[in-house]
Amino acid sequence: MITSLDCVPCFARQALDAARAASADPLLHERILRDVLRMIAAGDLNQPPPALAQRMHRHLRDLTGVKDPYRAEKDHSNHLALELLPDLSARISTAADPFELAVRFAAAGNIIDLAAKTGISECDIKSAIESAVTEPFVGDLSSFHAATAAASSILYLTDNAGEIVFDRLLIEQLPAGRVTVVVRGAPVINDATKADAEAAGLDQIAEIIDNGSDAPGTVLEDCSTEFRKRFESADVIIAKGQGNYETLSNTHRSIFFLLKIKCPVVALRTGIAVGTQALIHIGPEGGTGQSGE
Amino acid sequence: MITSLDCVPCFARQALDAARAASADPLLHERILRDVLRMIAAGDLNQPPPALAQRMHRHLRDLTGVKDPYRAEKDHSNHLALELLPDLSARISTAADPFELAVRFAAAGNIIDLAAKTGISECDIKSAIESAVTEPFVGDLSSFHAATAAASSILYLTDNAGEIVFDRLLIEQLPAGRVTVVVRGAPVINDATKADAEAAGLDQIAEIIDNGSDAPGTVLEDCSTEFRKRFESADVIIAKGQGNYETLSNTHRSIFFLLKIKCPVVALRTGIAVGTQALIHIGPEGGTGQSGE
Repeated sequence: MITSLDCVPCFARQALDAARAASADPLLHERILRDVLRMIAAGDLNQPPPALAQRMHRHLRDLTGVKDPYRAEKDHSNHLALELLPDLSARISTAADPFELAVRFAAAGNIIDLAAKTGISECDIKSAIESAVTEPFVGDLSSFHAATAAASSILYLTDNAGEIVFDRLLIEQLPAGRVTVVVRGAPVINDATKADAEAAGLDQIAEIIDNGSDAPGTVLEDCSTEFRKRFESADVIIAKGQGNYETLSNTHRSIFFLLKIKCPVVALRTGIAVGTQALIHIGPEGGTGQSGE
Repeated sequence: MITSLDCVPCFARQALDAARAASADPLLHERILRDVLRMIAAGDLNQPPPALAQRMHRHLRDLTGVKDPYRAEKDHSNHLALELLPDLSARISTAADPFELAVRFAAAGNIIDLAAKTGISECDIKSAIESAVTEPFVGDLSSFHAATAAASSILYLTDNAGEIVFDRLLIEQLPAGRVTVVVRGAPVINDATKADAEAAGLDQIAEIIDNGSDAPGTVLEDCSTEFRKRFESADVIIAKGQGNYETLSNTHRSIFFLLKIKCPVVALRTGIAVGTQALIHIGPEGGTGQSGE
């Protein structure tokens, strides 16, 4: 999807957040913000928002010399999610529908998104996880369950650190040995990289690969050849979060997007209210369809 | 006060709101937004936010040819507030402390601020007015009451349309014949102009003047000589809203600022939480003091 004008104030907020995460110098914050404003003023809004964000965050890392401004924040999110994991795992194992509960926890974990909002508190995360169980869920879970159960290979595109721990609950419900977990190729905002997949213990239950890109989404033309091969050949693709939705909702592949709707732009595009947990299946023609067979 | 980096995302949002209020053409919205980003990128952040906003909104009016983009919105706010007026007036007349209740209603009316937020619903306004009666109020009402009662001349700097109707309730509690109501010299955002003062019926109970400026605040050097004389000579100055606070909190005059704290930047500056109704008395030295005598 292309970038909405409503994304622009959010880019400025995101750049400022990231500048502050990378440096304590107010003059550097100002320099970064001014550069980013110029960058957006001249930017091509026909790209998806993560493509513009990618350039913005690259520039910020170049200026500050900090390669991973959100490392401490990401460690904190992983730690917090890992503390909740045993209880959530136990609740899934005794649930009437373990698959549905795992999907809901994985979607709720998508609240941990520092691209969409400044700071996520422990309280925000716990409240999202608790309400995940009872709140409305938009999407056809049974066809998703059937598609994943029948799949010979599943590509699971993760989104953020912390969230990736909740993804583990869903990955454990998918056919063992058939899941490949994909993380970003390099740090950007609080998006999950290999370090986060390992912190979540995913390396013990699935293959982990990275997509070769530092965009906070999946900009296919920027991804590695290896990743793109996997993207073409996977039987079922699951993509977490708004960044993956924004970059992949127009591709030729059939994809199950699992996310929490977090901003008015994505709400308008999907027709689903802000705050809702959603499973959106987009078929190969961009409409609702079945997984690519 | 100077412009915070945190004001920048808000400027972009405000420009987009105003562009949409002035025109239905998405290409023009984009042009305006890109221009505003360039303008802020090169802007002097040592000015108060309303000085930057002034340039931004001037440019927008030039590009669209629409001199008062928020006229319909302002009429609607006035109408809504006028509907509530008889009931609020009756409540004040039977209140244990009519002055306090009038101050609270006037402060609550400051919620009608389209600079700080996109869109204010009828529900937002009614809820602000209802909670005005019971919610905490920060500030020394008794010294404010004493200063206004003893004043030979009071300059009352209004902020927004709609809000100005609630100001009437407070102006009716001030010494009759001693109040001069000040509005902006030309339309900017939903700030009150003479038309709004008249819609609120203030011309029947006080002298109305404008400040000669189209800044959404009171940028003294941009105001008329006539207004500045009155600003120098008034016995007591009351200034409504964030825009007036942002532009006048560092002047040599003693001012009673009456506002609802609506953003984290002003909250940080004043030490008062977002959402709070506040009366902030800043003395001639910039600290807390008594009215200029």
